[in-house]
Amino acid sequence: MRIVVLTGGIGGARFLVGVRAHAREIGADVTAVVNVGDDVRMHGLQICPDLDSVMYTLGGAADPERGWGRVGETWVVKEELARYAAEPTWFGLGDKDTATHLVRTTMLNAGYPLSAVTAALCARWQPGITMLPATDDRLETHVVVDVEGERKAIHFQEWWVRYRGDVPTHRFVFVGAEAAKPAAGVLEAIGNADVVLVAPSNPVVSIAPILAVPLLKETVLDGPAPVVGVSPIIGGAAVRGMADRCLATLGVEVSAAGVGGLYAGRTDNGLLDGWLVDTADEGTTIPGVTTRAVPLWMTDEAATARMVAAALELAGVA
Amino acid sequence: MRIVVLTGGIGGARFLVGVRAHAREIGADVTAVVNVGDDVRMHGLQICPDLDSVMYTLGGAADPERGWGRVGETWVVKEELARYAAEPTWFGLGDKDTATHLVRTTMLNAGYPLSAVTAALCARWQPGITMLPATDDRLETHVVVDVEGERKAIHFQEWWVRYRGDVPTHRFVFVGAEAAKPAAGVLEAIGNADVVLVAPSNPVVSIAPILAVPLLKETVLDGPAPVVGVSPIIGGAAVRGMADRCLATLGVEVSAAGVGGLYAGRTDNGLLDGWLVDTADEGTTIPGVTTRAVPLWMTDEAATARMVAAALELAGVA
Repeated sequence: MRIVVLTGGIGGARFLVGVRAHAREIGADVTAVVNVGDDVRMHGLQICPDLDSVMYTLGGAADPERGWGRVGETWVVKEELARYAAEPTWFGLGDKDTATHLVRTTMLNAGYPLSAVTAALCARWQPGITMLPATDDRLETHVVVDVEGERKAIHFQEWWVRYRGDVPTHRFVFVGAEAAKPAAGVLEAIGNADVVLVAPSNPVVSIAPILAVPLLKETVLDGPAPVVGVSPIIGGAAVRGMADRCLATLGVEVSAAGVGGLYAGRTDNGLLDGWLVDTADEGTTIPGVTTRAVPLWMTDEAATARMVAAALELAGVA
Repeated sequence: MRIVVLTGGIGGARFLVGVRAHAREIGADVTAVVNVGDDVRMHGLQICPDLDSVMYTLGGAADPERGWGRVGETWVVKEELARYAAEPTWFGLGDKDTATHLVRTTMLNAGYPLSAVTAALCARWQPGITMLPATDDRLETHVVVDVEGERKAIHFQEWWVRYRGDVPTHRFVFVGAEAAKPAAGVLEAIGNADVVLVAPSNPVVSIAPILAVPLLKETVLDGPAPVVGVSPIIGGAAVRGMADRCLATLGVEVSAAGVGGLYAGRTDNGLLDGWLVDTADEGTTIPGVTTRAVPLWMTDEAATARMVAAALELAGVA
């Protein structure tokens, strides 16, 4: 069986740990198509937060406390940059992370596409799945906000890390998306998939930027594989991150029904065949979408693997 | 009084500590014109070993034990790069150093010339002198060597750091020198100088690449300021570094007379008006050059300042 997962960073990475565990059990191949909208160049380094979260988590090197970056991280480079007053000073650039960014940036500057760079980095981390960026082209999520009385578009990282999303926010723009092509391997993976899972990532700034790549979205919608999403909202609250703030910006209810409705069913020109919600949200209905309620708390690998099994069952491929 | 010093890295940096001390005493301005031949781009970072040695030393942040780099340096980035098998693995890229290189590379990539970048970095380090790279253009010292039975040109850093100069060595090539222009401010500094000092740096790979910039050399030779050199050789041995290996490659005797003869006097179309040698080398004569012998061991700032006073005296400007 071939499983494709559309995914963002931290929540998606935890979900992928369960996907990998279940896939090993049933002998399936897994390809993660990872959001690049958070990617940003800072201090000359190309930083890919979601790809790194997935890579470090599956490589067993993620910091479980902080939720992002490397375990045992040190901060000498960041402190030194601050002493040079080098902007931005609000970004958490760890020393170990810096080495990853140096390798990536050097390869990108030498002309390798991000997908090839990611494969090269994964030679070290052995994530046990195929990791693909959604696109090799520039695609950045910018946020239209009011800061100090001025309306402007800032990079998603600035919105999230610097302002914690706590500024008047009007909309999200996926810069470059319209011209972006799916990264090498993405269309093949989706075209050959037996099932496409949508990880319980932020629908607005993790999943939407992936689907903002026109040919990628088309291939998911037109492809033969059933699409099953896993709700990132449990009992009306985001499990992690800022899905609530993002959904509010779009005027979408912070609920399993709200996100499911945002993705929408195939008959409504939407994404989903199935929608997996938490038992707390049992009874959620989305027009044209089969829903099922199971425990969605990713407390450990086994619990997450059970969610994945339920998603595959819902897709009719278990 | 305006003092210009042509200088390389570590030995030159120590010399400059004495120049600065003496200049403060007599109320003189100091401009260091620093070798860039050792500069190299590694892991996408523009590394300027000599500029950094001078900047860190005068900024009070150099490691006195190791002789290069930052005191209290850590090595996380380097270890991580090695785990990615990112070449080259033989270069000592410290974490603190990495921040300097990130700031520099970001500014260079944004279009600022190296002289402006150096000034920006010095805003933090306050070296107390003006630091100028010899050129803002690309100028790299490469070394023609035999490695594994093959004759090839390698970067000076590879020759020095990786091979410790211990390979059959044929010659040094200053790539880009012929087309290089003096950096912003260099010609003005030399033209307005009351005296030009040649630091006791490696004559072959620290001073020669500076003078390989045609207009820079011309301005020193044709300028009104007397030129006094300080011997890097005491009693037939290099005080530090690999001047002996470099001189041997050129077939020049490792002695105060050998180096003085290499620089040569004005009447021989050379550089020097005066040549300061150690008391161990008293009696050294260079045609057309006034020599004087004083203690040249830079044991501390005061001893080095006395050397500088003697050099100014020899130049007739004290």
